[in-house]
Amino acid sequence: MDLLRYLEESARLVEREIDRWVPPKFKPEILAKATRHLIDAGGKRLRPCIALTACEAVGGRQEDAIETAAALELLHNFTLIHDDIMDRDEFRRNVKTVHMLWGEPVAIIAGDALFAKVFEAVAANARRLKLESDRIVELFDAISRASFEICRGQAFDMVFEGRKSVSEDEYMSMVSRKTGALTEASAKVGALLGRGEPKQVEALASYGRLIGIAFQMQDDVLGVVGNQKKFGKPIGSDIREGKRTLVIIKALSTAPKEDRTAILHALGKRDASKRDIEAAIGALKRSGAVDYVAESARKFVSDAKSKLTLLPKSKAKETLFALADFVVEREF
Amino acid sequence: MDLLRYLEESARLVEREIDRWVPPKFKPEILAKATRHLIDAGGKRLRPCIALTACEAVGGRQEDAIETAAALELLHNFTLIHDDIMDRDEFRRNVKTVHMLWGEPVAIIAGDALFAKVFEAVAANARRLKLESDRIVELFDAISRASFEICRGQAFDMVFEGRKSVSEDEYMSMVSRKTGALTEASAKVGALLGRGEPKQVEALASYGRLIGIAFQMQDDVLGVVGNQKKFGKPIGSDIREGKRTLVIIKALSTAPKEDRTAILHALGKRDASKRDIEAAIGALKRSGAVDYVAESARKFVSDAKSKLTLLPKSKAKETLFALADFVVEREF
Repeated sequence: MDLLRYLEESARLVEREIDRWVPPKFKPEILAKATRHLIDAGGKRLRPCIALTACEAVGGRQEDAIETAAALELLHNFTLIHDDIMDRDEFRRNVKTVHMLWGEPVAIIAGDALFAKVFEAVAANARRLKLESDRIVELFDAISRASFEICRGQAFDMVFEGRKSVSEDEYMSMVSRKTGALTEASAKVGALLGRGEPKQVEALASYGRLIGIAFQMQDDVLGVVGNQKKFGKPIGSDIREGKRTLVIIKALSTAPKEDRTAILHALGKRDASKRDIEAAIGALKRSGAVDYVAESARKFVSDAKSKLTLLPKSKAKETLFALADFVVEREF
Repeated sequence: MDLLRYLEESARLVEREIDRWVPPKFKPEILAKATRHLIDAGGKRLRPCIALTACEAVGGRQEDAIETAAALELLHNFTLIHDDIMDRDEFRRNVKTVHMLWGEPVAIIAGDALFAKVFEAVAANARRLKLESDRIVELFDAISRASFEICRGQAFDMVFEGRKSVSEDEYMSMVSRKTGALTEASAKVGALLGRGEPKQVEALASYGRLIGIAFQMQDDVLGVVGNQKKFGKPIGSDIREGKRTLVIIKALSTAPKEDRTAILHALGKRDASKRDIEAAIGALKRSGAVDYVAESARKFVSDAKSKLTLLPKSKAKETLFALADFVVEREF
């Protein structure tokens, strides 16, 4: 199947829906520009796509989940805008970040405004489908719990930057929240809106959590060996920011002393020279950590797929398999 | 009636409930401390009190609205934490602000985490009451719309700081969002949870909006003539930050030239001397603007009370009247 085309088509649907909730123009103008900036810069729209496909995989139609799919993308963009402030990132999706363009106060409020719209869109979805009460409560509960877990994950990520050492277990618990919680919620709410059985909803939630973890691992990999233009953000910025990615954690525990020194010499140094960053990247590549992380990510993907055995055979199920593979095969 | 005692009692109920949703301890520790800091510093818990009382006024029991009442206080504290970053405020409730204590990244994520918890608490409330679907959707819709309006109001507030002149109408539209939207939602969701009739819900929503506007006007007044210890934040900080409060707008349009000059000399000057700030405060007091704003606020309160004529006579209704008066009589 042609997954990239499928992703593009579902992105188009979702983007039209996003325009309903956060229109390109409203007052004050600066808030409209700042909330739309990152959304308009593109993105894979992976989370909405997971929701729409999960909805179909349990017997619903894509359009049954469209407002919530848009809401998930708003939620994702809110977290990116705030994370970029906190991490002092200057570029994302090949454009300047919101706080670089409009300053931190505007970036804070733009993120908040996107987050506020999430629940309005979900409420509209529930109303349109005339969902039963229990399912509505579950829908909101899943999205709010995920939002809180994302915050905890981001907070752990920041705490780890100041730590001497971080274990692989700690990393797993951090990314499971920071990235896994939202992909889990995406698959779960899709299944809820498709009126899936409780067991199906649960299976899709697990699938979502696992591919989210794999997604973050692949991000860690691309942050070292990716193509900057395709990836959309500077290669090596994880090192500069002192991020404890799994590639860095693993390399620090296995690389020979000289290479460890090269990594630590650049890690968390905002003003590290290009040469120091390149030396650290070289050390990471030599350590075998990149292969280790890519292999771990593939295991999570295979685990994710195995959760779907109880779903009936369908085109949507095949797409969920393809989405899982995409997560670790992507270069962007 | 003894409103202050009533406020204290309802605050105690709400605080116990808040502990369920944002416990004093969780991991990472820094996030727990930062999310709890402003909550633990106290506050009037006015919005929860409005919700609980509105719930009773339409025939419900206070406890029917307790999770949502707590959620409203979380939402309020989230906006305060983020506003304090944006406005560079150093004190609130007589304690240092979150970003002053832990830095901006932690303050951003602490606010986000509080906001995330809002909808989880509301979902639990809806589940416990076994509310019908339509009412659940309305509940979430009211809170998310209010959240978005608060963001717009705060964005207007920031935009106005950079403007040469702001009209009274623009001010009204800004505070109606920044402060009125949440008090409106508080009264509205209280009425929804008390299973009020649509007309009652609407009347209480209007009441809430109007007392919110009056509340902000009284805040503008206290920012000039208040007692710093009771008020909890530095007198004159509105001037230093260049806020277009109604007191400042009115004084700039009516004061004699010399006094206007004194106000403009300090307005928006972060490094203005104590003497310059005092001169501006003197000019504001002489202008008659303080009395004008206090009088306007009283009109909004009387308008708010008039919205409640369709509610049956009850102790809760009397409390809503007393709450409306409190908003403009308070010194804190």
